[in-house]
Amino acid sequence: MTVRLWDGAAAPQPHPPTEWVMLDWGTSALRGALLNAQGQVLQERSFAQGILSVPTGGFATVFAERFGDWMAEPHRRCLISGMAGSRQGWQEAPYCPCPAGFTELGQHLLWLEPGRIALVPGLSCMAADALQTPDVMRGEEVQIFGALQLAQRHSATLVLPGTHSKWVQVAQGRVTDFKTYMTGEVYGLLSQHSILAKTLVPNAAFDSAVFLQGIAHSQQAGSVLHQLFAVRTLALFERVPAEALASYLSGLLIGEELRSQAIANTAGPVILIGSDALTLRYTLALQHLRIDSQSWGAEATWAGLFALATASFDAPPKDLA
Amino acid sequence: MTVRLWDGAAAPQPHPPTEWVMLDWGTSALRGALLNAQGQVLQERSFAQGILSVPTGGFATVFAERFGDWMAEPHRRCLISGMAGSRQGWQEAPYCPCPAGFTELGQHLLWLEPGRIALVPGLSCMAADALQTPDVMRGEEVQIFGALQLAQRHSATLVLPGTHSKWVQVAQGRVTDFKTYMTGEVYGLLSQHSILAKTLVPNAAFDSAVFLQGIAHSQQAGSVLHQLFAVRTLALFERVPAEALASYLSGLLIGEELRSQAIANTAGPVILIGSDALTLRYTLALQHLRIDSQSWGAEATWAGLFALATASFDAPPKDLA
Repeated sequence: MTVRLWDGAAAPQPHPPTEWVMLDWGTSALRGALLNAQGQVLQERSFAQGILSVPTGGFATVFAERFGDWMAEPHRRCLISGMAGSRQGWQEAPYCPCPAGFTELGQHLLWLEPGRIALVPGLSCMAADALQTPDVMRGEEVQIFGALQLAQRHSATLVLPGTHSKWVQVAQGRVTDFKTYMTGEVYGLLSQHSILAKTLVPNAAFDSAVFLQGIAHSQQAGSVLHQLFAVRTLALFERVPAEALASYLSGLLIGEELRSQAIANTAGPVILIGSDALTLRYTLALQHLRIDSQSWGAEATWAGLFALATASFDAPPKDLA
Repeated sequence: MTVRLWDGAAAPQPHPPTEWVMLDWGTSALRGALLNAQGQVLQERSFAQGILSVPTGGFATVFAERFGDWMAEPHRRCLISGMAGSRQGWQEAPYCPCPAGFTELGQHLLWLEPGRIALVPGLSCMAADALQTPDVMRGEEVQIFGALQLAQRHSATLVLPGTHSKWVQVAQGRVTDFKTYMTGEVYGLLSQHSILAKTLVPNAAFDSAVFLQGIAHSQQAGSVLHQLFAVRTLALFERVPAEALASYLSGLLIGEELRSQAIANTAGPVILIGSDALTLRYTLALQHLRIDSQSWGAEATWAGLFALATASFDAPPKDLA
């Protein structure tokens, strides 16, 4: 932008404040936001163009097609989180091992264009079992730090429900441990492809009372592999209306996550990050177990990317140091 | 059969001993055996003609086509177990509630042709939870009583692994309780349709050592919904060879069944009934947990049907009493 004085002479050009093109590029979706220098969202875009739909070597092209107009301004810089940084993505940004906080993430950015475009690495942690079983996330880490900032918390238990739900422990600003549950994917498989599919009514309304019956049932001793079969037999014996069985199944599976977690209410409310439909279910389930929670949505993603970008982009890029 | 004396005069015709046409008519398969009066299997037949492939009202026709020749002899009688007795089958033989033994099953036969052809009812039991959640079996009950007879046991824990595994408690000859686990179906869904499918190598050999690592891992605190994700991350970090991951997954799921069961070795060996491939896995898993077992195959089905038929057919049919 050139500022002209009234006499027509060109004034010295001020350094325009940095604006940000933030991308959350996942497996099945590509979402972007344009943020001003204060972190306010000016525009948002989303495309059904996750990394699975991008041909090898095609990431720069898709990026230019979808966000080239935003990036045309020289004072804009870009930070990308999610599966775009995986082995199957644009370039592999190796996992940053836990415990990891904001500083470690910033130090491990992978620069696609030094100082201007970078990929956020995912996080990994190792279980203390014989195989040192790893766990991984990509994309959730920026949501976590974004939500913590919005909630002004340094320590918390966080849940990011979805296809692969994440339960995350944060202490003093660093992710110390997390666990992935295949809850959403198992729910999808059972309700679409299993014997239970015949029993469930498609597009039935969410039934909160029956959902909580599923939550209660899942807290009993036993195995979820057994409890699931109840979705069939409760229908067979007409104990639960067919329209409510999907809610019961959802309660059993979300309840199985809760059963295996030790959550102390004294540590402050659990932070939920996800869509309204999912965080509602977790809010209900946690409340049933007398555990308080707070929910955040997409704003956590943009807040996390903004905080990470503003803290890291003007530090010397690690690759160039 | 007419016996003629040397002088050509017809002797009084003796009552020929009853022979048995035994059918195990399940969801996806129809198996039959011809047994002599002593219960020995003379012939076996099987068809990919489970009840799902039989049109409404078509059961008598399929029966006549497949077993009409065997039934042509008037001294042959027939007993049918499995899903043919379900609501979607030939006729519904209502579930016999547990505790139930041999006597109760025999009293609840559903006669298709009084005194000559009957359907075996399934069993049901109710959990002591708020919904009194039912559980059901059809077909397994004859395998259970057959195996108990072959093993000369009156009390045992039995496992019938498969698409829907059954864990069964028998005390003094009566089934007191049982639980269905959707283990086989979940294994199939995960290995064919989930994100894990990309990680698994099709038709890989069974790896017993890695299978037992899965069993050991599943005995730890936590949730199978989380443990399953290790099948992906162990591959990602190359901790387990890709060819062995299907065995690991199998170990996790079968181990989850075992984790939720309290089995005392003092109660005698666990009785396994199923295919060799499956009972081998359970034998290994149980041995790993220092629990002895014995295995039975199809012979348990025919022994159970034979014992039930010989004990029940000459008692007055309940429907006619």
